Amino acid sequence: MNSVLHKRQSSIVGLFLALSVFVLSCESSKVLVYPVDGSHWVNMKVLIEALHSKGHNITVIRSSSSLYLKEEPSLFTTITVNDGIDGIDDVGGFFVEYLSNMMKIQRGEASILTFLKVQVDFFYMISHAHYLSCNTMSKIIEDKELIKRLQDEQYDLFLTDPAMTAGVVLGRYLKLPLVLNARWITSGEGHFAIAPSPLSYIPVPGSGLSDQMTFFQRVKNSLFYAVTLFQEKFVVGPHYKALCDKYFDEDCDIVSFLQEADIWLMRLDFVFDFPRPTMPNVVYMGGFQCKPAKPLPEDLEAFVQSSGEHGFIIMSLGTLVDSLPADTADEIAAVFAKLPQKVIWRHLGPKPSTLGNNTLLVNWMPQNNLLGHSKIKAFVAHGGTNGVQEAIYHGVPVLGIPLFFDQFDNLMRIQAKGAAKILELSQLDGQTFEQMLLEVLNDDSYRTNMQRLSSLHRDQPVKPLDSAVFWIEYVMRNKGAPHLRTKAYRMPWYSYHSVDVTLFLLSTAAVLTFTTVAFIRWVCCRACGKRKVKNE
Amino acid sequence: MNSVLHKRQSSIVGLFLALSVFVLSCESSKVLVYPVDGSHWVNMKVLIEALHSKGHNITVIRSSSSLYLKEEPSLFTTITVNDGIDGIDDVGGFFVEYLSNMMKIQRGEASILTFLKVQVDFFYMISHAHYLSCNTMSKIIEDKELIKRLQDEQYDLFLTDPAMTAGVVLGRYLKLPLVLNARWITSGEGHFAIAPSPLSYIPVPGSGLSDQMTFFQRVKNSLFYAVTLFQEKFVVGPHYKALCDKYFDEDCDIVSFLQEADIWLMRLDFVFDFPRPTMPNVVYMGGFQCKPAKPLPEDLEAFVQSSGEHGFIIMSLGTLVDSLPADTADEIAAVFAKLPQKVIWRHLGPKPSTLGNNTLLVNWMPQNNLLGHSKIKAFVAHGGTNGVQEAIYHGVPVLGIPLFFDQFDNLMRIQAKGAAKILELSQLDGQTFEQMLLEVLNDDSYRTNMQRLSSLHRDQPVKPLDSAVFWIEYVMRNKGAPHLRTKAYRMPWYSYHSVDVTLFLLSTAAVLTFTTVAFIRWVCCRACGKRKVKNE
Repeated sequence: MNSVLHKRQSSIVGLFLALSVFVLSCESSKVLVYPVDGSHWVNMKVLIEALHSKGHNITVIRSSSSLYLKEEPSLFTTITVNDGIDGIDDVGGFFVEYLSNMMKIQRGEASILTFLKVQVDFFYMISHAHYLSCNTMSKIIEDKELIKRLQDEQYDLFLTDPAMTAGVVLGRYLKLPLVLNARWITSGEGHFAIAPSPLSYIPVPGSGLSDQMTFFQRVKNSLFYAVTLFQEKFVVGPHYKALCDKYFDEDCDIVSFLQEADIWLMRLDFVFDFPRPTMPNVVYMGGFQCKPAKPLPEDLEAFVQSSGEHGFIIMSLGTLVDSLPADTADEIAAVFAKLPQKVIWRHLGPKPSTLGNNTLLVNWMPQNNLLGHSKIKAFVAHGGTNGVQEAIYHGVPVLGIPLFFDQFDNLMRIQAKGAAKILELSQLDGQTFEQMLLEVLNDDSYRTNMQRLSSLHRDQPVKPLDSAVFWIEYVMRNKGAPHLRTKAYRMPWYSYHSVDVTLFLLSTAAVLTFTTVAFIRWVCCRACGKRKVKNE
Repeated sequence: MNSVLHKRQSSIVGLFLALSVFVLSCESSKVLVYPVDGSHWVNMKVLIEALHSKGHNITVIRSSSSLYLKEEPSLFTTITVNDGIDGIDDVGGFFVEYLSNMMKIQRGEASILTFLKVQVDFFYMISHAHYLSCNTMSKIIEDKELIKRLQDEQYDLFLTDPAMTAGVVLGRYLKLPLVLNARWITSGEGHFAIAPSPLSYIPVPGSGLSDQMTFFQRVKNSLFYAVTLFQEKFVVGPHYKALCDKYFDEDCDIVSFLQEADIWLMRLDFVFDFPRPTMPNVVYMGGFQCKPAKPLPEDLEAFVQSSGEHGFIIMSLGTLVDSLPADTADEIAAVFAKLPQKVIWRHLGPKPSTLGNNTLLVNWMPQNNLLGHSKIKAFVAHGGTNGVQEAIYHGVPVLGIPLFFDQFDNLMRIQAKGAAKILELSQLDGQTFEQMLLEVLNDDSYRTNMQRLSSLHRDQPVKPLDSAVFWIEYVMRNKGAPHLRTKAYRMPWYSYHSVDVTLFLLSTAAVLTFTTVAFIRWVCCRACGKRKVKNE
């Protein structure tokens, strides 16, 4: 045992030495951060806190209309850009209406016209969001004084989230080493911009498909990819193209800027996602935001403890949707009321008439601390990345009610591993909800499978957040990481896919074959001719 | 400073805890190793020593005719298989003859027939080596008693080097979790079996190309790939196909077995190699065998110190070729004699007549310790992977004289980064050797560039050997790692490349277009017809 301990210690000393090299050489670097608002900011802040704790100076650019992003002088310097937006659009209202229409469509209660309207509205909403983002970026670049200040500061690194890709334009404009805290880009998932993504086994986001598809599922996947391309070319891309054309001399587009990022810190790992091709400059930090649970506030702890051996359930559908339609909420509350478990439910709408004594309605909950509590039995969730990762980290089985974006895809990934059950909006009524919830609660396989995912997720040589910080510091230390990214993206598509070489080789083979055959025929004809002459 | 130290210590404590989990849960696992002889064994032994130091029990299978692989009871249990080979083929002799012919060909002193003969001999040599390897494997599987013993031992892991791929067959036969210590497989480089490898920017081994190619270089790359496929299908593959057909019920081949490995420990990294697509179950451990230099033996240290400020050079062309042709050796010795540096030269042939006092001929040298010596100035090397990795690790510029296999490709990778100069066999005379050696010695850029590679290579979150051991133990702890590998390889090629889906979509589009056009024509005709009737 002593020798094992000794070996362990000596390997730790090795690690200590290796770490100390970069800790020392990276003190007091300057990082410029251009984040995305909302839940994306929650993620980015985790990285900022980690960088701050390593002694780096961080500057964050925020829009004047930002809702989540507040100044925090103890953590970072803030540069507020007046984006000229007076009031905030009713994004929440949009999503509730969208949700209500989608439920009608999935239940066959709405016409094809409603379906088309919902899709067009959705594209419009996305296009408008990117338009606003590009507009703000235009204001920043036009502000000569601000740009000079940013240039004079000589930042060591530009860190941004490409879900709203305008930040990437600024990073490129300032010619700074670029690290992305990424999962989504202008048109779908980040990998599609940088890694080979054969459509035969890489499901396109939104398709709801897995990595094992039938023929017609592969056809569906290709059609979804066509929609992605349409979105890139006609819905989102043009806003960025206009920015590029205005402020850069070379012929460029947003995808080429993305492809020049030094490191992609991807908010996923292969315990969660299906295995797929990747690139050397992609670092997987899925679950980097997860941490051990802290004790609950006294009243919440008392409520949770009162559940006894039955434990408790939590339900939250994320920050975009505060509540479900009243009749649906009533049905769900009635199901909860029948359970022996206690329930904590984030619900901001009118109090359901059927609410039981065992159910606590809250405006907000310490989700991570509840998921890490020893008495938790299940998580009723919408399937946002953060919630799913926290569920994996703490090993809590999930009943998922996906609403929009990537939520179905996220849930489907853990359902495929037997750790979750998906309840689609079209099926959402009291009876189905009860049946599925009881299955997740009573069938041990869900818990066992989720705990296996949890143990696999935690089984990494370096913790995801430490890894993210290491690679950010790596890019600062080495002033970029060009040796980790291919320049092949610069090739025209027909060269990248060897279409030109294939055509050349086929033509050459054809010419050779034709010449050989012609020569043989000529020789034969001459031989025959001579014989004929001889015979005559 | 104190707070930085404190933070550093606390992150070390975190790592310590994370590490201790797997150290404890992996004690006394049983590993079965099926290595490849020669320099490959040197690499495998580094892994075995690391696993042994972690308390694992290791069993190594060796052939009775093995040259390098000796019993070492303190390190591993040995199972010796009688391969029925009495004497060893004169492999060294083959390579010296091959080398001499290649020099003649490259200098234009040999006919096309000699060239063809050399190529066919080379293919024959490779085919024969794989035949012997498969033959030994057949003897093992036929030995019921041995197989029962291996099955009864209930090993936790099978570790093999797929350069001679027969080991993979045994791993599969015993149904053990499989980890590969890999770079080469039956037909070229390991990545080609598991990761997308677009020929537009992934140079095929042996082509001597980089990741940035002109049109005709891409044509050349495709032709080299065709040769690789030929080798796989007709030279090497059939031996393994026979094994598979004989001992497995399902329809299988060696490539499908390789694709089912849990983890590929690749003996390269992207400081050395060009960036390329990879997969989640590939772990890069390039330079895992490198370690800080130990003090030299007294006499060697005295010789080296006598070089004063000029420092010293070492020259070694690997273990396969003991010496160069006598006239070439004379020319090289004459160049060395003129230098102010001291020279240590591994040379087993007749003593060159022009040998200077500053040059020490040796049978063997402590290469790693010499490369890590503060007085070393340059390394004249053949470009084997181990030597190149050691040169990178210690930051020593290289004058490369590639002989065969991957050596030109290895050297070309560091030459592309400005850290080496390649002297091809066809150019090898005193004058060119002197000119190039002086360039490497006197142009500081070679040393600066190699030292940058060295610092990038050492800048990793986990040391390569620790990473390799972590992932071996990971596979043992988790009884495999199926979630890290795709099952897409099982698809037929036309599905994998979406040929079927593309044809289906094109046909559908054609039918739709045709029907629409036909319908419009029919409507137009009817309308015209009616108008005609009206007009009449």
